Amino acid sequence: MKQWVELLRFIGNRVYEKVKGIVGSDRAKEVMGRGEFGDNTVFIDKLAEDTVVDLICKSSMACSILTEEKGWVEVKGRYPIVIVDPIDGSLNAKRGIPYYALSIGLAFDNTTDAIECGYVINLANRDEFWAVKREGAYFNGKRIVNGGYKNLGVVAVEGLKKETNPDMLTKIFRSFYRVRQSGSTALDLCYTAVYAYDAFLHLDKARVVDYAAGKVIVEEAGGGLFEWLTDKRFSVGINMDKTVPFIAVPYSEVIGKVVEKLK
Amino acid sequence: MKQWVELLRFIGNRVYEKVKGIVGSDRAKEVMGRGEFGDNTVFIDKLAEDTVVDLICKSSMACSILTEEKGWVEVKGRYPIVIVDPIDGSLNAKRGIPYYALSIGLAFDNTTDAIECGYVINLANRDEFWAVKREGAYFNGKRIVNGGYKNLGVVAVEGLKKETNPDMLTKIFRSFYRVRQSGSTALDLCYTAVYAYDAFLHLDKARVVDYAAGKVIVEEAGGGLFEWLTDKRFSVGINMDKTVPFIAVPYSEVIGKVVEKLK
Repeated sequence: MKQWVELLRFIGNRVYEKVKGIVGSDRAKEVMGRGEFGDNTVFIDKLAEDTVVDLICKSSMACSILTEEKGWVEVKGRYPIVIVDPIDGSLNAKRGIPYYALSIGLAFDNTTDAIECGYVINLANRDEFWAVKREGAYFNGKRIVNGGYKNLGVVAVEGLKKETNPDMLTKIFRSFYRVRQSGSTALDLCYTAVYAYDAFLHLDKARVVDYAAGKVIVEEAGGGLFEWLTDKRFSVGINMDKTVPFIAVPYSEVIGKVVEKLK
Repeated sequence: MKQWVELLRFIGNRVYEKVKGIVGSDRAKEVMGRGEFGDNTVFIDKLAEDTVVDLICKSSMACSILTEEKGWVEVKGRYPIVIVDPIDGSLNAKRGIPYYALSIGLAFDNTTDAIECGYVINLANRDEFWAVKREGAYFNGKRIVNGGYKNLGVVAVEGLKKETNPDMLTKIFRSFYRVRQSGSTALDLCYTAVYAYDAFLHLDKARVVDYAAGKVIVEEAGGGLFEWLTDKRFSVGINMDKTVPFIAVPYSEVIGKVVEKLK
């Protein structure tokens, strides 16, 4: 797995260099066609995705690839499935809001339970996070040490919008000292793993590409992802469906307290 | 004014280097005493503030200084008043959420109308913004060119919390495609100046230290700050009082449309 982490870090830093100059520009937003899963693919997504796919193909690694824009790409083998979100927080990158990331997870079977490695690079400031199952999680090269129970002060949220139930909207703001909504699930998960956020609420049904890497990073840091308003960990198949809304916490034991506040 | 911009950029980059390693750490959060205006001063605020004050004192510039933590410091003269928020988005910096900035404005009289120069550095990724009255605004060294009317899709908000009126809460989410709340007024203003956000809603009464620099940056980019739900620009005295809630837009003509949505 060490070889994979090295490759992913190499890829991440190349993508960082490539997108740096064009974030927020008109070029970044140029529509290049429609992706496999219905959303428009813009130049910055395509640039990042092409870089990732190209570098994996050139490596000696056997794998298949699932990406947000291209869908399935087979390289030389079935597993691991390399689950790629080339730009998570694509709207931010198009506009120049400094909070977007490349997210790559590796699954050794066809469910999210089998994700054994995750890598995320914050493309706005080069912060790197990675984790290998049973070997721990790392933030900028330092092992993340779990901090145990801290209070529930600051939460990140994804999915507060027009369509949100007004009662839930009010409840979320009433339940915590400060609420952040910054627009990248991958980064919200990573910064939750290091207790920048005390919890992360993903209100909409999430897709595996968005949380594949973040999930193993949070788990290896000592936290977990739980089905919305339950203390049940979940596992879904690896595809592009939107499946479950969830809550992530940096310390698993605290999930009950978060659920209690929101029920 | 060129000399001031050079000094502010020098100071900004020094502060960036100093805080880089300690953001999000226990050291960053250590309480160092109570500031002039009632909030706790923590290590990271003090480190940034001391660096700014020290470098200004060592320069040959005549001025007085108003900072969030120390209050008034006289160097060698009355004007300009150097208005300093050493860490705007202090909660983010303490926790390691990558969105916090140093903000410095220069006022040549005792009201916000007289702010003639503003400098903001995003301490999470080194993005720099500055402006000089009648000479334009700059983002990472490039002159900001106003983009005219674009649609109102993404807004930044500061002050959505427990105490927010539920009707206003719902109205804000209903009125825009996406809402971001990231926790730094100085940065929200700067990224509004470059159309990363189509508007910025500051719901609480704001303090001059938070918006001094951002105000002249937005204005020189072609936008403006307006009293909450009006199209009236406002001017207040330079002190630490909380005075007006406001709305900022990157293109002044669009303020009417924003107000209409929220009324």
